[in-house]
Amino acid sequence: MNRRDIQLDEHGRLRHFLTTEGLPRDLLERILDTAGSFTGVIEKSIKTVPLLRGRTVINLFFEASTRTRTTFELAAKRLSSDVLNIDVATSATSKGESLLDMLRNLEAMQCDMFVVRHAESGAAHFIAEHVGDDVAVINAGDGRHAHPTQAMLDMYTIRRHKGAFEPLRVAIVGDILHSRVARSQIHALNGLGVGEVRVVGPRTLLPRDVERLGVHVYHDITEGLRDVDVVITLRLQRERMRGALLPSEQEYYQLYGITGERLALAKPDAIVMHPGPINRGVEIESAVADGERSVILNQVTNGIAVRMAVMSMCLEGRGTPAEEDA
Amino acid sequence: MNRRDIQLDEHGRLRHFLTTEGLPRDLLERILDTAGSFTGVIEKSIKTVPLLRGRTVINLFFEASTRTRTTFELAAKRLSSDVLNIDVATSATSKGESLLDMLRNLEAMQCDMFVVRHAESGAAHFIAEHVGDDVAVINAGDGRHAHPTQAMLDMYTIRRHKGAFEPLRVAIVGDILHSRVARSQIHALNGLGVGEVRVVGPRTLLPRDVERLGVHVYHDITEGLRDVDVVITLRLQRERMRGALLPSEQEYYQLYGITGERLALAKPDAIVMHPGPINRGVEIESAVADGERSVILNQVTNGIAVRMAVMSMCLEGRGTPAEEDA
Amino acid sequence: MNRRDIQLDEHGRLRHFLTTEGLPRDLLERILDTAGSFTGVIEKSIKTVPLLRGRTVINLFFEASTRTRTTFELAAKRLSSDVLNIDVATSATSKGESLLDMLRNLEAMQCDMFVVRHAESGAAHFIAEHVGDDVAVINAGDGRHAHPTQAMLDMYTIRRHKGAFEPLRVAIVGDILHSRVARSQIHALNGLGVGEVRVVGPRTLLPRDVERLGVHVYHDITEGLRDVDVVITLRLQRERMRGALLPSEQEYYQLYGITGERLALAKPDAIVMHPGPINRGVEIESAVADGERSVILNQVTNGIAVRMAVMSMCLEGRGTPAEEDA
Repeated sequence: MNRRDIQLDEHGRLRHFLTTEGLPRDLLERILDTAGSFTGVIEKSIKTVPLLRGRTVINLFFEASTRTRTTFELAAKRLSSDVLNIDVATSATSKGESLLDMLRNLEAMQCDMFVVRHAESGAAHFIAEHVGDDVAVINAGDGRHAHPTQAMLDMYTIRRHKGAFEPLRVAIVGDILHSRVARSQIHALNGLGVGEVRVVGPRTLLPRDVERLGVHVYHDITEGLRDVDVVITLRLQRERMRGALLPSEQEYYQLYGITGERLALAKPDAIVMHPGPINRGVEIESAVADGERSVILNQVTNGIAVRMAVMSMCLEGRGTPAEEDA
Repeated sequence: MNRRDIQLDEHGRLRHFLTTEGLPRDLLERILDTAGSFTGVIEKSIKTVPLLRGRTVINLFFEASTRTRTTFELAAKRLSSDVLNIDVATSATSKGESLLDMLRNLEAMQCDMFVVRHAESGAAHFIAEHVGDDVAVINAGDGRHAHPTQAMLDMYTIRRHKGAFEPLRVAIVGDILHSRVARSQIHALNGLGVGEVRVVGPRTLLPRDVERLGVHVYHDITEGLRDVDVVITLRLQRERMRGALLPSEQEYYQLYGITGERLALAKPDAIVMHPGPINRGVEIESAVADGERSVILNQVTNGIAVRMAVMSMCLEGRGTPAEEDA
Repeated sequence: MNRRDIQLDEHGRLRHFLTTEGLPRDLLERILDTAGSFTGVIEKSIKTVPLLRGRTVINLFFEASTRTRTTFELAAKRLSSDVLNIDVATSATSKGESLLDMLRNLEAMQCDMFVVRHAESGAAHFIAEHVGDDVAVINAGDGRHAHPTQAMLDMYTIRRHKGAFEPLRVAIVGDILHSRVARSQIHALNGLGVGEVRVVGPRTLLPRDVERLGVHVYHDITEGLRDVDVVITLRLQRERMRGALLPSEQEYYQLYGITGERLALAKPDAIVMHPGPINRGVEIESAVADGERSVILNQVTNGIAVRMAVMSMCLEGRGTPAEEDA
């Protein structure tokens, strides 16, 4: 099944948010525009918006991630939704028939949205295929596959700092192979018509067919960073590198760490991004992470608005309950 | 102490909800009627009702049960209540003096309701006997003893599909011995004046004096299902079967599994129920569980409304706080 | 840095609440007065107050404490705040650089308050020094150092039962050495101008320089309790007594347990307090804990109002978001 089919309804509206791959440009832009409408909330000039009042969002986490869970919980509460956190032990329940029974049960409790985190690629997609019309599914990270809300908050951050995507050159540096974030970023950047996407890393940390994603490949960081507008450095996903040829942290930093010296190769007003949590002295020099060109904490703030955007868009037009709340 | 005494106040109103045993018929019916008034909420045409606004419900779980906890949390939030989840490690705290001190402390925090789950029979009753007049206790399952909200959601489901109880023949199939659900169902069915209750299972999984509960006993499933209106199959409670003569799952399915063939013995419009989570191919054939006569997922949905009913009835008339919320 | 500097802004308003040490008397009294304004909420005649609507409070617990977490969560919800619970495993994250990165991330999520519990003394202070102007930090217990909200609820309880502090003689009995509560109580009592503070305990459970805190030291309990107005008994903190000369529970009770007989030495209307949870027959005789002079459960109830007071005072005047909530 085409990824686009399941994510969009017949009018092109967002039904689920599983991947940035294949999403039409106008939809990607609409997500960014909607996020922009929530800046009053994240800047604390507005308290909450009642868009999801009376709705129930379930954070269905098959893999622990306090950080991601917290951002979705905050976004849902800012939208006035009820939120339930369900941590599913990595047991039999997380797969196959008993997973489906669990989903059917949660649906029968009249929930409106599942925010799904799972260690296996494709899990959120599988769940979206099996829920009824009333439930929206948001992918909060599935294995190596995708982390689309992270990618969209990165796009939002780039647009706020750089404006239009067309003239931009973006370098994604590090462990592309194990990074669901990188995959989602590449699809989003290309979908939004960015000028050039580069991936920069050692052969062992790049997918074999990475060029097919529409990127230019660099193994040498001094080449890769030259004249870029945006530097995105990734977290070393050591926990996913089973048996792989693993560089030591010192080796990695020497070859690919974002230092002030290397950053000087990029454009003078280039911004530096990282999905967090950062490893100082491994992926990035401390002074760069905290420096004036770093937008790492802006990414976190923007994440609330972008998640609010995706959540409200996915439920828009699905039979809002009447206002009978006293 | 008579079970009825502690559950009802001097005007016959619900104070605690601990067991369906001995409850007067008009009260059981009032629970079902009240649940009926909340269908707008569970069908999503109404968001929330403000009946418990400003109240605090504590889910006090001495035994883990994400499923049951979730339904109570959802029901409480639909009633606009604050909800706190407290998981009590199965330590010294769960018994005796230190349990009482914990309860007194939670009461002193001005909570309004404890939803109690405990591995020991009688725990919820013990707690209800020791809380002050301001706190209502709801039994969310205590050992082998009772699970009254599950039983009432089953009653609600039966009434929605079958109407009056008098003409109905209901078969409860499986592990009656270890099932708190079965006990509560039998009391509720008889309390509501059902035509006939049958229990169907092997001698080893039936309580010795089960006839005294007002049921007909069948060991042969083809006899037991003949001409019934409702088939309730129970979950095999393997975790509670210590040292018992335990049939293998295959043996059990062969003897008591609800298959399409066996269901044909019941009335043509008979419904099939299960408290969940189901073991496909053990208690029930997959095709039956998902078939048109299965109301298993309706039970889950109805559970929200029934828990809302019991929670609001238990707090009704206990000094509602004034509306000073801006 | 002077403790007062970081806790107060230039107008003498509360910014953080980390310790009772060095706080000016009028501020301590203002906390008690503000708590007094919330009695309608804790007595259930008022539901909730909207003072923190649209605000986000994070319970950041580096050390598990269901009891303390619950009271802060209740207080925050009574103030209409959103509350998130984050339990931080005692890993690398709880210290140094990665702790700071975590804080910066939570700040970037636009939270308004951290309620911090940590096993190390000074942790809340460290965090308060490193957050931005928008975030208030409340110490919910840091190592042996301080537990200021517990101390203030004790002060509130004393004032409700005894009125003015000047004429009062207060005895704090037990394990002063390991008690953050005792330290915070001593500073609060002296700050509020109490007549006399006594500490009563064996040499091994008193800090060496305890007199410098402005207390009279007693090793003999019959001397220590004579003519006091208030008896505060502490919990034996066995978990913090590594390698110390540890009295057995029986020995401790024989020497320092608060029995009815010993209480007769105090003033006829003396009250008995304990921060909980109590060890019956160790620190206190059961009949005394449950007796008419015990205010132990009143302390718990008052804790909600006092925590509401501190939370609302810390956020007062920090850019309240506009009311755009429908």
